[in-house]
Amino acid sequence: MERKLRMGMIGGGGGFIGSVHRMAAVLDNEAELVAGAFSSDPAKSLKFGDQFKVAPGRVYKDYKAMLKTEQGLPKEARLDFISVVVPNVGHYPIVKACIEAGFNVICEKPMTCTLKQAKELAALIKKAKKIFVLTHNYTGFPMVKQAQHMVKSGMLGKINKVVVEYPQGWLAGLINAPDNGIAMWRMDPKVAGGSCCMGDLGTHCENLMKYITGLQIESLCADLGSFVPCNRLEDDGNVLLRFKGGAKGILYASQIQAGEENPLRICVYGTEKGLEWRQEDPNYLWLKDPAGLITRYSRGNSNLCDEAKKATRLPWGHPEGYVEAFANLYRDAFALIRAEVNGKKIPASDIPGAEDGIEGCAFVEAVLASTKSKAKWTKMPK
Amino acid sequence: MERKLRMGMIGGGGGFIGSVHRMAAVLDNEAELVAGAFSSDPAKSLKFGDQFKVAPGRVYKDYKAMLKTEQGLPKEARLDFISVVVPNVGHYPIVKACIEAGFNVICEKPMTCTLKQAKELAALIKKAKKIFVLTHNYTGFPMVKQAQHMVKSGMLGKINKVVVEYPQGWLAGLINAPDNGIAMWRMDPKVAGGSCCMGDLGTHCENLMKYITGLQIESLCADLGSFVPCNRLEDDGNVLLRFKGGAKGILYASQIQAGEENPLRICVYGTEKGLEWRQEDPNYLWLKDPAGLITRYSRGNSNLCDEAKKATRLPWGHPEGYVEAFANLYRDAFALIRAEVNGKKIPASDIPGAEDGIEGCAFVEAVLASTKSKAKWTKMPK
Amino acid sequence: MERKLRMGMIGGGGGFIGSVHRMAAVLDNEAELVAGAFSSDPAKSLKFGDQFKVAPGRVYKDYKAMLKTEQGLPKEARLDFISVVVPNVGHYPIVKACIEAGFNVICEKPMTCTLKQAKELAALIKKAKKIFVLTHNYTGFPMVKQAQHMVKSGMLGKINKVVVEYPQGWLAGLINAPDNGIAMWRMDPKVAGGSCCMGDLGTHCENLMKYITGLQIESLCADLGSFVPCNRLEDDGNVLLRFKGGAKGILYASQIQAGEENPLRICVYGTEKGLEWRQEDPNYLWLKDPAGLITRYSRGNSNLCDEAKKATRLPWGHPEGYVEAFANLYRDAFALIRAEVNGKKIPASDIPGAEDGIEGCAFVEAVLASTKSKAKWTKMPK
Amino acid sequence: MERKLRMGMIGGGGGFIGSVHRMAAVLDNEAELVAGAFSSDPAKSLKFGDQFKVAPGRVYKDYKAMLKTEQGLPKEARLDFISVVVPNVGHYPIVKACIEAGFNVICEKPMTCTLKQAKELAALIKKAKKIFVLTHNYTGFPMVKQAQHMVKSGMLGKINKVVVEYPQGWLAGLINAPDNGIAMWRMDPKVAGGSCCMGDLGTHCENLMKYITGLQIESLCADLGSFVPCNRLEDDGNVLLRFKGGAKGILYASQIQAGEENPLRICVYGTEKGLEWRQEDPNYLWLKDPAGLITRYSRGNSNLCDEAKKATRLPWGHPEGYVEAFANLYRDAFALIRAEVNGKKIPASDIPGAEDGIEGCAFVEAVLASTKSKAKWTKMPK
Repeated sequence: MERKLRMGMIGGGGGFIGSVHRMAAVLDNEAELVAGAFSSDPAKSLKFGDQFKVAPGRVYKDYKAMLKTEQGLPKEARLDFISVVVPNVGHYPIVKACIEAGFNVICEKPMTCTLKQAKELAALIKKAKKIFVLTHNYTGFPMVKQAQHMVKSGMLGKINKVVVEYPQGWLAGLINAPDNGIAMWRMDPKVAGGSCCMGDLGTHCENLMKYITGLQIESLCADLGSFVPCNRLEDDGNVLLRFKGGAKGILYASQIQAGEENPLRICVYGTEKGLEWRQEDPNYLWLKDPAGLITRYSRGNSNLCDEAKKATRLPWGHPEGYVEAFANLYRDAFALIRAEVNGKKIPASDIPGAEDGIEGCAFVEAVLASTKSKAKWTKMPK
Repeated sequence: MERKLRMGMIGGGGGFIGSVHRMAAVLDNEAELVAGAFSSDPAKSLKFGDQFKVAPGRVYKDYKAMLKTEQGLPKEARLDFISVVVPNVGHYPIVKACIEAGFNVICEKPMTCTLKQAKELAALIKKAKKIFVLTHNYTGFPMVKQAQHMVKSGMLGKINKVVVEYPQGWLAGLINAPDNGIAMWRMDPKVAGGSCCMGDLGTHCENLMKYITGLQIESLCADLGSFVPCNRLEDDGNVLLRFKGGAKGILYASQIQAGEENPLRICVYGTEKGLEWRQEDPNYLWLKDPAGLITRYSRGNSNLCDEAKKATRLPWGHPEGYVEAFANLYRDAFALIRAEVNGKKIPASDIPGAEDGIEGCAFVEAVLASTKSKAKWTKMPK
Repeated sequence: MERKLRMGMIGGGGGFIGSVHRMAAVLDNEAELVAGAFSSDPAKSLKFGDQFKVAPGRVYKDYKAMLKTEQGLPKEARLDFISVVVPNVGHYPIVKACIEAGFNVICEKPMTCTLKQAKELAALIKKAKKIFVLTHNYTGFPMVKQAQHMVKSGMLGKINKVVVEYPQGWLAGLINAPDNGIAMWRMDPKVAGGSCCMGDLGTHCENLMKYITGLQIESLCADLGSFVPCNRLEDDGNVLLRFKGGAKGILYASQIQAGEENPLRICVYGTEKGLEWRQEDPNYLWLKDPAGLITRYSRGNSNLCDEAKKATRLPWGHPEGYVEAFANLYRDAFALIRAEVNGKKIPASDIPGAEDGIEGCAFVEAVLASTKSKAKWTKMPK
Repeated sequence: MERKLRMGMIGGGGGFIGSVHRMAAVLDNEAELVAGAFSSDPAKSLKFGDQFKVAPGRVYKDYKAMLKTEQGLPKEARLDFISVVVPNVGHYPIVKACIEAGFNVICEKPMTCTLKQAKELAALIKKAKKIFVLTHNYTGFPMVKQAQHMVKSGMLGKINKVVVEYPQGWLAGLINAPDNGIAMWRMDPKVAGGSCCMGDLGTHCENLMKYITGLQIESLCADLGSFVPCNRLEDDGNVLLRFKGGAKGILYASQIQAGEENPLRICVYGTEKGLEWRQEDPNYLWLKDPAGLITRYSRGNSNLCDEAKKATRLPWGHPEGYVEAFANLYRDAFALIRAEVNGKKIPASDIPGAEDGIEGCAFVEAVLASTKSKAKWTKMPK
């Protein structure tokens, strides 16, 4: 019987994404949360620890204390990995510290606030031979894997056009709000880094696009804007894309498209066929055939690729959602972490990691630079 | 810090529903699977136990052995509840034995194979003062709770018509199959009891209808049929309904509607408005206004009723699915079980239990009787 | 150059269906409205005639005057056909008079108010060798023709189950209305005949089902009900069906399903595949494959059957609607009428006619009889 | 009784759009096609004339002959208007000739191939006091009018973001086709003018955007591309928009998004709410409320604005389509034409005309210029 992995968490006390990480980690009964520094406020951290059923002795006042103590535990008690679920600006120092302390890391995106930091971390991770997983969770959906498979297998022909849109509307209400001074970390450069909308949503778009199509952005032309008066960062961004090899694309993300919830959508078009996947209806994938047929592929069926099948827990017609996709990332990460912990060869994997983090940061820097240059075509930085 | 509840499981090694119970139980970090008799084959049971990370000492060769041993454990180690996930015919003897051995039970539906058995069990459960939860899991969806709320609050006016449909197609392929002799427990009266399609799907329809509308079936007129040659039970059933108070309805379920996956759908119509909920798209609820508006309500928003809000883990736009709804049942059950275990007053709850089990069995007996009588209107047995 | 056919109209001044007939008749530039008795009120008839650009000399005070005069016109001026667009009870005497006066007829459904009348008319029509078309307009949709083709071609295998639903909600508002005494001809047995909902909507369901599947109802079991206090006829009806050859079905129609507009929907299931067509989204047809694929066929594509192609005026993606489908009936009727007028052999056609009218009336009589008998299985009358 | 208007047509023999014009013109029984030069090939023109039931004496070998003869007819026989349905490059000379000959014109878009020509024509039309209607037919849909109304009435708040997409896929098949040399006028600069995709589809997007929102494009940044080897013009275009007043937008159109039919879609977002309209599902409009509600408005209901109601022929639930929307343009045009013909004051109207034509041409020139400049922000030419 394989033992459960020991999970630590930094941050994740408030907000919803911490609880997503915790659910994703335990869904398959492969891990257990045993330690954490859940808040920068030590009292809150303790309270969260109690709530999350972590023994008080392993709830820490801050991540430094946690790393120091946990590092010193005997191997049979030590954490197998740490999930880093703090606002953007914390990613760099905390992941660095975790890796240096010898821990595997599962980290929220974007990897860091600058491309430079991302590269530095990536080098560190490589040298330390630790596992680093970036939770670009949308790649965990079975039908996203099926989309990737269809593109790879040539079913669509050569890809010529990609459209990815990620409109949210939750900040629209602030545009005319009298309490425009509302504090929200995503709009604060000191916490969020240089970008609000693009760092949060745009990087998901970029990553999903690359995951499905394999295309590399060559250059882009962006127009970021800010509509919420109290927002010092952008809350809307529209981007034209040119890919290596000649394909073109559109990527847009927003937080002020009033009334939209989370309808991330990607459409990919080749010489032969098109496909569409929608996050809010994630159990399906639509294949568009110029012969006049649009075919809905459905999760849980035997006609799907192996990767889609492996990423599924329920039969057709019994909807899976966001948590299950997130748990796929965790499950894939666990395979790598078990190998690392047991000193085995790390298996090959397409799970998002440091390289994806670098590309996400490069993308954000490029859209910021293009906007600054008044929408000149800007090459993706190396 | 509240401890995790100790869960035992009987059955659930194969099939998908056992794993749903296990995921639902751990999703909120409130319980841990610590014992089980996962198969009627002792060797398989042991193998499943290893897979589910249950200590070998608490994996049993059969449920009798399990109950005997677990019953004797000290209170601080004893199981808090047992999930019964075996084919229909096993429900009666196993639940009976569990209750008699002093355990709380979470049981798959239908409760039993006969109305008589269901009533007997209900009396036993009542006398033993144990918790009994029947996993009519569709009542766990937040938007089903919202639907119930809308009806209760009078938003739809007086309810006059209800349509509930549950077409599946997975048995259609057997109609012309050369291997028509395929063994499937759902089609075997010795294992499934008197009904295949109605026991499996029809009872969900009946329960969901009652949960949302509060209406009681007065009489029904049914036409069950069997299209799969090797099926000794029915695989299709169409039912006309008359409710107490004058409303009318249609209920149909099938396993031979080729190409359908799991599109359970309920539509309720009052004097003022109508509503629609679809299991395959469960994060939404549609309210139909004769003024020419159909409004989509969406899970995770602040405009929903408290019950819908409490049954939600993620914000709007981040889809929840079948497992999360199932976990809502478990979470609600845990509140009752903790009370029972701690000798506290059992809180009021609308979680499906023995009464729902009795009504489900009464429904199945009524549709069988109506069919036998050549579709005479048949009163729901008391 | 073929001349335009000369059209007369009886009724059709008020309501919307008269204007549908007029648009359908002229859409392809094949006919011209040249005479009419548009209302039972002579003044109104004249006013409507002016509005419809009919020369005042050919606007009549009633249908008898019209038939008398038009009958006497020379062949080169005489009407080629008459569209009968009056409430149900008028169909029998008016069609009878038209046929006896030597005119071809296009008539609204249901054909008559009794089966006896329908049979009598059918015999008369046959003897007179006149064209009689019944506007079961839903058969005019290209994707309905494609559905028929798929069934005929065996693509679905042997048909085992059919579900057709036609819920409307426009009468729901009358249930609690203070002005419950509202006069509406559909609810008045003296004008509508013996049925409100089933005559209006149920006959469409029955006809569409037969058109697509070719199945004949053997017996049925019905529960009609009336929820609107001032309605002396039924406004809701639920029917179980058994077809010759063993297939089963459900048909329901209603006028009190609050908030529904006109979502006539038919689902057909065979041993191999299922299909679905929806009137409110009529340019598409969904084919359901148990392999896990639902494929949307789309009007205007070259992969469709000849009948679907011929019934189309626009390319894919440019939606056609109700009027175009209605115009397909007219266009098909024109081919027959031209043949009749020119003394040529009447070509074969699957356009709805007297036989369909008889079956519709038989269906209505059967559901009324079944309801009266307290839902006994009732054979379709011959 | 008002007489029918006399319609002439230039072009429109082949293709589908000519027949759309003819159906739209006669649908309401307000006009009759009485003359035409239907093809540049005189023999074909005659054949088409016969098919369209135009008297041979008024079928012409070319448009010049037609104008010359028709101009000389007495007032009571002369054409009331001419529909110009020829490829783009013909618009300028033919409309010019028609206006100079004293005829009102209904013309296909784009108005001309250059902005200069459009302005010249506009001046000519103004001077001649003739009616000129440009068939931006999507503005004819009732729910587009409702969208305009909602924006105008302030229901959405201040508009900040607009997305309009018009992906087609019908040219994708040519990308790898062996017969890449296929002749298609849309891809031939000599016939189509300077643009293929943007002239055909982009101008619809621009016009629809303006019609609904009233926003004026200030500057744009475009990336046009050509994927079909034999295409000397562009078949894909992606455009970033900045509007006067600060709103931003995205507009893209394509002919190589394989498998797409005609899904023109527009989404408009204000500070309060968002809305969405889709051409392939045109009877509905979705209003998106940040409170968590998406409400579907439906054509034919009494809760819509007057303009939407007037543009409707059928009740709710009976779908209208492309032809009916086109006919709304014709019907609106007829009101103007009747006034012109009768020497009355031309009523105010928001029907697309010369100003819209100018703006469409300006838009095309701007996207071409921006692409040439390597996607610099380009101001809309005056």
